[in-house]
Amino acid sequence: MKRPILRKIIKLPEKTVERLSEYRRTLFNCLDDGLTHVFSHELADMHNITAVQVRRDIMFIGYSTSNRKGYNIQELIRVISEIIDPGEIINVAVIGLGNLGKAISTYFIGKRPLLNLVATFDLDPKKIGSEIQDIECYSIDRLHEIVTNKNITIAILTVPVYSAMDMAKALVQAGIKGILNFTTVNLRVPDHIFLEEYDMITSIEKVAYFVKNKTNK
Amino acid sequence: MKRPILRKIIKLPEKTVERLSEYRRTLFNCLDDGLTHVFSHELADMHNITAVQVRRDIMFIGYSTSNRKGYNIQELIRVISEIIDPGEIINVAVIGLGNLGKAISTYFIGKRPLLNLVATFDLDPKKIGSEIQDIECYSIDRLHEIVTNKNITIAILTVPVYSAMDMAKALVQAGIKGILNFTTVNLRVPDHIFLEEYDMITSIEKVAYFVKNKTNK
Repeated sequence: MKRPILRKIIKLPEKTVERLSEYRRTLFNCLDDGLTHVFSHELADMHNITAVQVRRDIMFIGYSTSNRKGYNIQELIRVISEIIDPGEIINVAVIGLGNLGKAISTYFIGKRPLLNLVATFDLDPKKIGSEIQDIECYSIDRLHEIVTNKNITIAILTVPVYSAMDMAKALVQAGIKGILNFTTVNLRVPDHIFLEEYDMITSIEKVAYFVKNKTNK
Repeated sequence: MKRPILRKIIKLPEKTVERLSEYRRTLFNCLDDGLTHVFSHELADMHNITAVQVRRDIMFIGYSTSNRKGYNIQELIRVISEIIDPGEIINVAVIGLGNLGKAISTYFIGKRPLLNLVATFDLDPKKIGSEIQDIECYSIDRLHEIVTNKNITIAILTVPVYSAMDMAKALVQAGIKGILNFTTVNLRVPDHIFLEEYDMITSIEKVAYFVKNKTNK
């Protein structure tokens, strides 16, 4: 096994980071199932991509193995973690505690040791002061204060459409560095902010397109 | 303007379908803002991709314009819709009515005329019989019956991890053709089922990676 050599040397493409994150998730699941090794073609099958793609990604981060049993799962998790994990804990907030905000908060807490949900925010007085697994919901009026005090760098945005743009501006002003946008609004943010957007309608439309095209065969 | 020529002739790559869906979402927003035309570089800016990519995608679906005001938004929406929309209504079910299932159901209802949420399913007797905007929640025991009677072809899976695999099997047996999986389990499904998976942890890890790397610059 070779040591990874690329850490901090180059910035990986977005799609590579996504796939590495997905491989690691799968590798955690494999460990839970009691496996110790996995072949590239097995990883590929689990992700519906080619084994060539998997091998290329994993070579790209400087890992290789001559082991006939395939990749050592624990080693590969460690190497991927060295590449994609932040070197220190990153604090995250969920903005908007509707059903989606609640679902994300509940799901996210404790999933990754270096990504730490430390606050949620809402407008609704009934929600303010409530807790999800000890994580308090704050009034959106206190955004700047709490973001600063708790050193929050990433915000997950799940507010209604009509307030999304204003909220994004407030987040940038408060010093947030990255936004994961679950609203349907295309946000405009300054260049120094990393913005990732997800719209489930796109996923559903994609499934519908391929279901239709399979049926038409 | 040329007519689209590719409908039903070739199957588009997954990423192209995703981008077309995203362009259309943006075009709907532009229409709401009172715009009639948009340039490729404007669409590109709104999606953080290159104008070349946008022009290539739109040429690929057989649309072009010599209009100096850019693409006609209504025409482009129509052309994209002809390409990616199913020719008929597709019925969808949400499986698992926790916070995420509720959020998705509420969000999805009425968003696209040809994608129709017709049922939700859960195990919890308290949820069975409840409604979200007239869409009834059924017992998971009635999955096969309801899927058949309501001609459901797509399932959105938001059940707990421990039941994800069993539920996927039940969906396939019930005749579902496409699954959008929001659980963290890598599902195995037969080849004739289209599977799309989304894990928000991957999105958050991606934001964290790029936030970290921007900071390191």
